[in-house]
Amino acid sequence: MTREEAQALDAADPLARFADAFALPEGVIYLDGNSLGPPPLSAHARLAEAARAEWGEGLIRSWNTAGWIDAPLRVGGKIARLVGAGPHEVAVADSTSVNLFKLAAGALSLRSGRTTILSETGNFPTDLYTLGGLAALLGERARLRAVAPEEIVAAIDEDTAVVVLTHIHYKSARRWDMAAITAAAHAKGALVLWDLCHSVGAVAVDLNGVNADLAVGCSYKYLNGGPGAPAFLFVAERHQGAIRSPLTGWMGHAAPFAFEDAYRPAADIRAQITGTPPILALAALEAGVDLQLEADAARVEAKGRALTDLFIGEVEARCTDPALVLASPRDAAQRGLHVSFAHPQGYALVQALIARGVIGDFRAPDIARFGFSPLFLSFADAWDAAAALCDVLHSRTWDSPQFRARAAVT
Amino acid sequence: MTREEAQALDAADPLARFADAFALPEGVIYLDGNSLGPPPLSAHARLAEAARAEWGEGLIRSWNTAGWIDAPLRVGGKIARLVGAGPHEVAVADSTSVNLFKLAAGALSLRSGRTTILSETGNFPTDLYTLGGLAALLGERARLRAVAPEEIVAAIDEDTAVVVLTHIHYKSARRWDMAAITAAAHAKGALVLWDLCHSVGAVAVDLNGVNADLAVGCSYKYLNGGPGAPAFLFVAERHQGAIRSPLTGWMGHAAPFAFEDAYRPAADIRAQITGTPPILALAALEAGVDLQLEADAARVEAKGRALTDLFIGEVEARCTDPALVLASPRDAAQRGLHVSFAHPQGYALVQALIARGVIGDFRAPDIARFGFSPLFLSFADAWDAAAALCDVLHSRTWDSPQFRARAAVT
Repeated sequence: MTREEAQALDAADPLARFADAFALPEGVIYLDGNSLGPPPLSAHARLAEAARAEWGEGLIRSWNTAGWIDAPLRVGGKIARLVGAGPHEVAVADSTSVNLFKLAAGALSLRSGRTTILSETGNFPTDLYTLGGLAALLGERARLRAVAPEEIVAAIDEDTAVVVLTHIHYKSARRWDMAAITAAAHAKGALVLWDLCHSVGAVAVDLNGVNADLAVGCSYKYLNGGPGAPAFLFVAERHQGAIRSPLTGWMGHAAPFAFEDAYRPAADIRAQITGTPPILALAALEAGVDLQLEADAARVEAKGRALTDLFIGEVEARCTDPALVLASPRDAAQRGLHVSFAHPQGYALVQALIARGVIGDFRAPDIARFGFSPLFLSFADAWDAAAALCDVLHSRTWDSPQFRARAAVT
Repeated sequence: MTREEAQALDAADPLARFADAFALPEGVIYLDGNSLGPPPLSAHARLAEAARAEWGEGLIRSWNTAGWIDAPLRVGGKIARLVGAGPHEVAVADSTSVNLFKLAAGALSLRSGRTTILSETGNFPTDLYTLGGLAALLGERARLRAVAPEEIVAAIDEDTAVVVLTHIHYKSARRWDMAAITAAAHAKGALVLWDLCHSVGAVAVDLNGVNADLAVGCSYKYLNGGPGAPAFLFVAERHQGAIRSPLTGWMGHAAPFAFEDAYRPAADIRAQITGTPPILALAALEAGVDLQLEADAARVEAKGRALTDLFIGEVEARCTDPALVLASPRDAAQRGLHVSFAHPQGYALVQALIARGVIGDFRAPDIARFGFSPLFLSFADAWDAAAALCDVLHSRTWDSPQFRARAAVT
């Protein structure tokens, strides 16, 4: 493909106008929206309004007058539309890690007598760590069993309370068949808890369409919600009355401002909210979610597949370094919106690319990872990024001490 | 006291200049800084910098270049100076509720074999709810025992793993003797977990001076950190290697960016950090903490005592309604920086005061609560607030349907 052909794709792209909603730095091709999305311009305005008018002028009154108390469910209800959930099935709260803990414990409460939490080796670390921590806390009443991805279905048995999988793998972008796994788990009486961190805002997810039970996800990737933005959680309506949260903070009480000594859980999704909602972070996040809702979800995924196909095609057509190996599924239908290439010098390679404005990231031990957020990236960006990657490889600019020195966050 | 005498106190107040660091709305006397502190002007600037320069320009690079990854410990280290802790004993993370869960479970891990979590009836609800939720999760390995405050010391026994108390009571402002309770608990081999929500930034706290074990606190009250600002936690250095967090998120791993399957906890306070740090909220919070550190902590408490003494004195001298009864300790040394009056029409009374710009809050069933943040309040404010309260009572302006109608957040 020529650069002109890529530009022609941009001219025909119905999502092209969304790039104007961001102001990325001059000279940057940002391929790390899958780790931290950039701020929509509207997020700055929304954040300033929340800080100056709501916090500064409204003060404590804003809990009522600015709708602060409803923010976790209001923003959750908007995220619900992005993942095929009902408006009262999603809440914004805590971090992905804390939500994983809550819902995995909740799944055990729904499947009393079963002890196995099943997950895959190589899952995103916090998933395995959090599930392992829960199992350690519960002693004989729970165990974490992690098996290779190809063994998951066979490993689901009558002791399995919940299967916890990340829909799109953080490293390879490999994508689980949500409907098939959910059906396999339900056939054995088990629940499924989906981690949607790399899915929401990227690919079409239809939680109720696949009869999903539980899900969590983060909002600072494709939703562009801000660094460390609060996470969300989904509990299918049919489970809401029965599921028990282990984190019974006051915001999950049926009547938090009655200040009762005894805990009475809210009967709905609010039972999964723990502490006081993070209002400033929610304001920035809401701007990102609102922007995402303006785009057609099917078009977002289709553009993302096309961007990643273009990138893979150009890299493989142009780069002659045999050490560079595609580490993501080749079939776009089998992956999410990032592309990983393995290379023995993956870390230095990524740093050299960042130095010339092409920002991806590295995942140990050898993965150079490039995310293609459809809202702000163009086909020309994908073409330019492929050209830059091949140029850095061919010119060996990565082979320098400045690019080999490891930073705290990789 | 005359208003001129109150103004003379302001003229001699070494903290008076701090009011210029805030911009409270015209005509407002803000007596709810104990629930939500107002924004320091510096918080707006800091928040905009974090959003525009760090998030918008630095993008993912800011985890390293803007010090994001260190923010929980950097801000925690600053809060440590306000509570008599060492710089590596405090981290900012999660909410107070989640931190209570983590440290109460951690206390059980340090006192293996003991099963009792001891607290007081009437404690702030989230404390009782969270501890009860933990006990319910652990089954026979833990139980929450809540006794009346005067029975706490006698109730500490050989089965007590941890005593969990709120240093300053959210409703009455009654203050526990931290040194005495800690010594009593240690004498029985138990730990103490202090909730410092109404203490930090208000009264002098010396955690290491009293040989404290564990503490949590929130940052949106006297620290003026913003609505739903992240909470903090303290683990005494001597416990850091041994305590086990139940919430083993990736940010508590010894090497989070090694992306290992197996959890290895950090050996220090970082083991208590769970998910990705909330950077925007941390930026606003850091401005509030920095401002607090400019003020001498002993002077802050002394001014707060004087403000509350003035308010109580004037209210009792001027208000002739016999139904208004002081619900806080009369001795300033026995209370924090808020004052509660019980009145059968407490809710409507507070609403009528808010309507004329004197903003306090209501706590069920009958408490009108007024907080005296020393950084932005003057003695004239306290005098005016007392006059307004008595005027509302004498004129019965509270006796109106508009003031009796309950809002979602009281």
